[in-house]
Amino acid sequence: MSSHWHQRARGHLDSLTKPLGSLGMLEDIAARLVAIQETSTPSVDKKAVFVFAADHGVTAEGVSAYPQAVTEQMVLNFLRGGAAINVLSRLAGAEITIVDVGVDASFSDARLLSQKVRRGSRNMLAEPALADAELSSALGIGSSLAEEAHARGIQLVAVGEMGIGNTTAASAITAALTGADAEQVTGHGTGVQGEAFLHKQRVVRDALALHFPNLANRRPAPLDVLRCVGGLEIAAIAGFIRTAAQKRLAIVIDGFISTAAAAIACQLDPATTECLFAGHQSCEMGHMLLLELVGQRPILGLDMRLGEGTGAVLAFSIIEAAARIYNEMATFASAGVSEAIQP
Amino acid sequence: MSSHWHQRARGHLDSLTKPLGSLGMLEDIAARLVAIQETSTPSVDKKAVFVFAADHGVTAEGVSAYPQAVTEQMVLNFLRGGAAINVLSRLAGAEITIVDVGVDASFSDARLLSQKVRRGSRNMLAEPALADAELSSALGIGSSLAEEAHARGIQLVAVGEMGIGNTTAASAITAALTGADAEQVTGHGTGVQGEAFLHKQRVVRDALALHFPNLANRRPAPLDVLRCVGGLEIAAIAGFIRTAAQKRLAIVIDGFISTAAAAIACQLDPATTECLFAGHQSCEMGHMLLLELVGQRPILGLDMRLGEGTGAVLAFSIIEAAARIYNEMATFASAGVSEAIQP
Repeated sequence: MSSHWHQRARGHLDSLTKPLGSLGMLEDIAARLVAIQETSTPSVDKKAVFVFAADHGVTAEGVSAYPQAVTEQMVLNFLRGGAAINVLSRLAGAEITIVDVGVDASFSDARLLSQKVRRGSRNMLAEPALADAELSSALGIGSSLAEEAHARGIQLVAVGEMGIGNTTAASAITAALTGADAEQVTGHGTGVQGEAFLHKQRVVRDALALHFPNLANRRPAPLDVLRCVGGLEIAAIAGFIRTAAQKRLAIVIDGFISTAAAAIACQLDPATTECLFAGHQSCEMGHMLLLELVGQRPILGLDMRLGEGTGAVLAFSIIEAAARIYNEMATFASAGVSEAIQP
Repeated sequence: MSSHWHQRARGHLDSLTKPLGSLGMLEDIAARLVAIQETSTPSVDKKAVFVFAADHGVTAEGVSAYPQAVTEQMVLNFLRGGAAINVLSRLAGAEITIVDVGVDASFSDARLLSQKVRRGSRNMLAEPALADAELSSALGIGSSLAEEAHARGIQLVAVGEMGIGNTTAASAITAALTGADAEQVTGHGTGVQGEAFLHKQRVVRDALALHFPNLANRRPAPLDVLRCVGGLEIAAIAGFIRTAAQKRLAIVIDGFISTAAAAIACQLDPATTECLFAGHQSCEMGHMLLLELVGQRPILGLDMRLGEGTGAVLAFSIIEAAARIYNEMATFASAGVSEAIQP
């Protein structure tokens, strides 16, 4: 992070007509935007959200409250504009791109960005979720989309996902990256309860035991984590985030799954964290561990656990407010307002 | 609150294409809007913020980090559009009204709504802050503005304030309403530190001892609290909130001062709480106590402590998102999405 720009931003914020620091996190966000964009007039007018969809072989184990077909059905819902992410993107004035990286279905809608690597990842309880070439493809798809967004002048991006079974993958990723137990990182996802929930925990534990038997002693490499217990949309998001950060876009991550992808990207390239904003604190229990890992404090805390990028896009309005505050407020000098008589 | 409308709202929310309850507080907000407006198509398109300004006699005691003249200077800043509340109102698409209920200055700007009751409240360390007639006038000013906003079709209102010294008044109100000690309710306001901060605590303690010597045994009546240790803008806000709730507007309170006013309004008319939303959790230590008193969970938690209505207007985007979600999302049936296979 350019500490020069950060310091300059702090100086400007302190000159604005308000008690020092009284806009709290809005000021932090504004200063970070200034440092990311290296400009004294930060702008997030051009906004976009990318929703990556894929299926997961591990759904064969019965880890979700919903049938796998819901991934396909929700993609169609996205394309028709009826999902939560559509509503919130319209309100935020953000363009939305739905990317099929691996849904187990055939689509014939030109509005869908078709980049299918495979019809779903493999079942992580039997084999690595992704073959090497599949992992590379998915990472590359995300990376290319980030480059293209940058070339189009997008300034603020959110990443979201759809994939029945993907909280199971995110739980396994979290455990592999942090060394936490399956019990500490496995949440209720779309709503599994009781015996089904305990089963989901066992699936995560067994997948970890299969792929990372020495987890207690040694953390695996991030790409091995992604390959063995990740998923196609998670890999695409990781590739997207890494490249978007290299291009100095302001990137808003959403909940558990996109933060798992961000954690991989940050391990691959630690400077990634400079460009990240955490849209919200999700209800999924592993999310907090991941937010610590990527060094982000969540902007919103509304007990959301939907995914799709909803918490990220909802936070756009707060980030936009921070930019406007920075650009539009009067200074003590320009407004003729007296400064504090005591510090 | 109409439990019929609330139940109906919950039924609709559960039919939308998302896991049950997965939009967390957005769903609660949407259900409350439905119940407040008694409609199945809640709308908050018409938005307004009212900023009430007044001076405080207690500033003679040196309770603020800023000179009293800043109240007047900030009113001029509001009128020129350079303050934080102006920036955030423009972004939210909310009309803004600045109301002078008691600034110790003469203005000649037609954009200011001039309703001056007195040039500042009296010094609460010497006498009641407001005479009976002054209190009635201020309450009436707020009440009339709420009626007028309702008549104009405003659906969502925020209340804000400007008044050097008014966190001292809000601290005393909080202690009088809750029985908490001065130390538990007195915060740093615009930034008093060290000896000045301890002095502010003593001022609050002494004002309470003067007006409510039996506080440990008996809670004073809300209008007595407002009269003895309140202020003109706080009284106007209390009157505004009470009438706005009677007219079933959705009302967003801001930080410590407007929540103190809301607490008075709720004691005068307990049904007021049904129409309240708490925009944010302020850094002021007494704010949490007041939020409990008015039964509200804050929407945002961004460590803000500016006032002016900034935290309330910033929360408009979340409330608007809740209304849009309710109105625009597809249902499982309409989108052909499978429902959960296990609860």
